[in-house]
Amino acid sequence: MEAPVGVDLGASSGLMGTAEKPVDRRILRSRQKLCDALLDELKDGQQLEVLSVSTIAARAGLTRKTFYAHFHSPDNVVRQIAANMFQRAVSQVENDALTLPVADSRLGISILSHLADDMETIALLATRCPSAVFLEPAGEAIAELLDRIVSVNALPPLDAHVHEYIAQIIGGAFRGAIIVWAERGFKETPEAAAKILMTLLGPGTDALLNQRR
Amino acid sequence: MEAPVGVDLGASSGLMGTAEKPVDRRILRSRQKLCDALLDELKDGQQLEVLSVSTIAARAGLTRKTFYAHFHSPDNVVRQIAANMFQRAVSQVENDALTLPVADSRLGISILSHLADDMETIALLATRCPSAVFLEPAGEAIAELLDRIVSVNALPPLDAHVHEYIAQIIGGAFRGAIIVWAERGFKETPEAAAKILMTLLGPGTDALLNQRR
Repeated sequence: MEAPVGVDLGASSGLMGTAEKPVDRRILRSRQKLCDALLDELKDGQQLEVLSVSTIAARAGLTRKTFYAHFHSPDNVVRQIAANMFQRAVSQVENDALTLPVADSRLGISILSHLADDMETIALLATRCPSAVFLEPAGEAIAELLDRIVSVNALPPLDAHVHEYIAQIIGGAFRGAIIVWAERGFKETPEAAAKILMTLLGPGTDALLNQRR
Repeated sequence: MEAPVGVDLGASSGLMGTAEKPVDRRILRSRQKLCDALLDELKDGQQLEVLSVSTIAARAGLTRKTFYAHFHSPDNVVRQIAANMFQRAVSQVENDALTLPVADSRLGISILSHLADDMETIALLATRCPSAVFLEPAGEAIAELLDRIVSVNALPPLDAHVHEYIAQIIGGAFRGAIIVWAERGFKETPEAAAKILMTLLGPGTDALLNQRR
């Protein structure tokens, strides 16, 4: 199980460590420890705003200096945790779920079902961190899915700026749905939440992508 | 011009000051000064993260104590500025733009055109603050619009949880579009940005709302 986590930790853009340079195992282990330590603090009832670097480092059994070698700030750790989570959910979406039309909810159900595996983490991040910090990486994950949809359906590539708009608009919409889902204590099944989301987004996404065939 | 700003500052939920109690003019003036001072600091090239309460208060010609009487933190000031901006844009949308179908882009164009009046502020907030802080209030503004759409089209009221999902999903989608728009330096006209947004969201929103007639 170490490899996929490693890939996530090393490759997340906008964070420390670059995708080009393979990140060694010790570095990955420290990062993972810091992520786990922050989540443990949240589980104990702390709010992100009051968590200091010292507290997180101590809980991970590491020094402040090591913390700063890996992350700029506690916010940065949360972004990393969220990026891993979205990455994991998106990488588990099967190609079958990516064929058009997307309006039939298969894709939405697939994503939300995989995210539901991290329900405890989502609930912690949604209730104890500013919602923005943890859902920012959703856009990046959606951008990747969009590339896969284009490829699976053999569509011509999207213009760069249209691609950017679509990824951020759909990413923002997912973010909104996940926030309500978490705030309501995951009362809806992934299927029910996905249905509302895909009813709103599906027909327009299909129309936009079908224009291009 | 003082009255609408006053209403916005007093009525924004989740911030200090309640809608029930009318807020007196001196309080509104202090809040406005603090908002303006923060924007001036951003215009001078400061990032939100490094702005201290002392700096903002001094720029406004007020004390730290007065700052804390109005706001919890600089983030809180940004949320207030963003809430005012969305409130202003949404309150200017004419009822004509709210009739179904929304897929024809009238509504999206109307909102983005009114937001375009605040282009300088949007660009500052988008480039110098974590995007989340300033676009959080978008959901609230969309929730209000949704109520107006239901009323203008004489639709039966939405279930509370469906209303919440729709508002946050559409608010998130707008947020995504506005971020790309600002990051690209408002290169697209409001019409062009609205067209991408409404192509994605319009057909699904119409379908969902029409189910209810």
